[in-house]
Amino acid sequence: MSSNKKTTPERLAAFSDAVFAVIITIMVLDLKPPAEATLKALLPLWPTALSYAVSYLFIAIIWVNHHHLLRFTHHATSQLIWWNFAHLFMVSLVPATTVWIAATRFAAAPVFVYALVFVLIETAYIAFEGEALSQASDSDITPPLRRITRIRCYLALGMFSTAAAISFWSPRSGFALVCCVLFIYLSPRVPDLHRSVR
Amino acid sequence: MSSNKKTTPERLAAFSDAVFAVIITIMVLDLKPPAEATLKALLPLWPTALSYAVSYLFIAIIWVNHHHLLRFTHHATSQLIWWNFAHLFMVSLVPATTVWIAATRFAAAPVFVYALVFVLIETAYIAFEGEALSQASDSDITPPLRRITRIRCYLALGMFSTAAAISFWSPRSGFALVCCVLFIYLSPRVPDLHRSVR
Amino acid sequence: MSSNKKTTPERLAAFSDAVFAVIITIMVLDLKPPAEATLKALLPLWPTALSYAVSYLFIAIIWVNHHHLLRFTHHATSQLIWWNFAHLFMVSLVPATTVWIAATRFAAAPVFVYALVFVLIETAYIAFEGEALSQASDSDITPPLRRITRIRCYLALGMFSTAAAISFWSPRSGFALVCCVLFIYLSPRVPDLHRSVR
Amino acid sequence: MSSNKKTTPERLAAFSDAVFAVIITIMVLDLKPPAEATLKALLPLWPTALSYAVSYLFIAIIWVNHHHLLRFTHHATSQLIWWNFAHLFMVSLVPATTVWIAATRFAAAPVFVYALVFVLIETAYIAFEGEALSQASDSDITPPLRRITRIRCYLALGMFSTAAAISFWSPRSGFALVCCVLFIYLSPRVPDLHRSVR
Repeated sequence: MSSNKKTTPERLAAFSDAVFAVIITIMVLDLKPPAEATLKALLPLWPTALSYAVSYLFIAIIWVNHHHLLRFTHHATSQLIWWNFAHLFMVSLVPATTVWIAATRFAAAPVFVYALVFVLIETAYIAFEGEALSQASDSDITPPLRRITRIRCYLALGMFSTAAAISFWSPRSGFALVCCVLFIYLSPRVPDLHRSVR
Repeated sequence: MSSNKKTTPERLAAFSDAVFAVIITIMVLDLKPPAEATLKALLPLWPTALSYAVSYLFIAIIWVNHHHLLRFTHHATSQLIWWNFAHLFMVSLVPATTVWIAATRFAAAPVFVYALVFVLIETAYIAFEGEALSQASDSDITPPLRRITRIRCYLALGMFSTAAAISFWSPRSGFALVCCVLFIYLSPRVPDLHRSVR
Repeated sequence: MSSNKKTTPERLAAFSDAVFAVIITIMVLDLKPPAEATLKALLPLWPTALSYAVSYLFIAIIWVNHHHLLRFTHHATSQLIWWNFAHLFMVSLVPATTVWIAATRFAAAPVFVYALVFVLIETAYIAFEGEALSQASDSDITPPLRRITRIRCYLALGMFSTAAAISFWSPRSGFALVCCVLFIYLSPRVPDLHRSVR
Repeated sequence: MSSNKKTTPERLAAFSDAVFAVIITIMVLDLKPPAEATLKALLPLWPTALSYAVSYLFIAIIWVNHHHLLRFTHHATSQLIWWNFAHLFMVSLVPATTVWIAATRFAAAPVFVYALVFVLIETAYIAFEGEALSQASDSDITPPLRRITRIRCYLALGMFSTAAAISFWSPRSGFALVCCVLFIYLSPRVPDLHRSVR
């Protein structure tokens, strides 16, 4: 039952989930099958397939982190709500830039914009994370873990910025560098998430 | 567990959230990347970018207010349900009118229709708000706060109507006036939301 | 916390809500703004506007009834789940048929198919309702109310079938008859919903 | 209220539901009405109608199984979360391959890819199921039921692989074999689901 005293990080979580779900599946609409009915006709679609897979994986990582963070919040403060909207806005730019890099087969400007969108996502995420963790006590998250979390965010931000910069010289290296951040987020998360979610 | 005695403003909230989430992300489908792979090719897209950002921000504000209001409701009465559907119907017209103002680069008729849609959204919202707050006691919401809430709604309604009227003479001023309402809703909300949601 | 003993009509409700939310807003994608920036250019869009409004209202009514019914269920039996999927499948055909009647400006065959889709929706709904109400005791729903509910359903089914039949002679009368069912569902619902949801 | 101690298979379920809901309804966008307003014009659309119905039914079955499985989980471990994302990724490929088999009227390569997507869905599902059931005790699920569940999965995997293989010789037989798996999943599920969900 609803109560006017209850704070609702749950509704924030539910709304964000719905937005993530729509964004992650809206990219599917750009997976147009080839006109011919042959397997060879699938080959030229590799930029679409690769960029879809990378963007899907990123949004999955963003969801896991978002879900992890919201567990520390007790109140849906307006700062938290607005940084969340800023974060979701930046994430909502991923499908269009994904289509652009696929259509231009990893040209310089689209990869630059793609990396830039991730710089913006990460910036909004850092603000969102700061707000969420300000509600957590030391027993919720130990100071060393808090430091590691922050370092990883700034490292990702630095790598996305570098990827944006080098994409003008070598867009494919820029895209590869963006992909590297995936592994930063994926690998050290696995043990710690496992422990803390259990 | 479900019980036939339970009233469910929660399911109303969840359904509305899903509709807001789809509406806010459906606008992304109209963010078509340019055909060329240059940054200059992005420049002519500014009307799309601006109108997307403004519409996104509006739907975010509408969600925050909706979320705020539903905290006062204890029963999903049929009046509340139907005003909510009327409200969501009007909000569902935002993406199409956003595309229209972007495609015509802020021409008179599209900006008029855009402002008109906000007049309709605000009208349905005022009825929805009246129904939701009729369930709130004075300890839930103080009489002065109730009065301020109502005044702000009618002020917004007046500004949207004015924006619609002047958009025939100067569509860009009309659009700017619509944007002004954003700041009315944003700025005084922040302190009060922060206090009350906490 | 999840428990393997818990039955979950809640997850069924949440999933159905998400499907309804996507279906109701997917129709928005067919609201294409006119090419010219004049109000006159909106006039030829009246079939789209009318059919969108009618279909929106129908899905809203379906949601209200669905939400009302699920309050009587205690267990998500597989019959309930599968009739629900059959019902949602039929509802998912509404957007495409709505586009068809709008594009052909209420021609005979499209209106026939539109009415037929509502015959199918109503048939699946009657089966779903039977299953849901078989879980309700006489204190949940009084025998006279149960009878009225059933009569209304068969009345709607008859009217949709008649509308389908007459649409070959006069498609606009067929469409008007479909709209009449809206009022059957809307008007007597209001008092009883109000009483029972409170 | 959110607590940092709480594990949340619920949010995993809610997010997956939203993704399933969007995928199942996104296929509706490809149900384009014919240009002419005659019933005959609907006939050539049978490949679209058939493939939409089959894909809809598959996603419904996947949802039922997913919903059934998550009832056994107590913790959203990161393995569970990532296998779920892998599973949803594979399911997200269904709409595009559905369009392809409909557009090419069940040609060899598209049916091969369609069957292959189901091989991948089933593979991810087996891993997801293993992880979910590893949390269940013998009182939650009896060892014989556990064995039957596993056998059915490998049987489905074998049939999807066979369907992929034979689709090069006879694509329509391949598609028919894929459909047969539907009945394996549908028929024995009904009694056991009914018993266990109640």
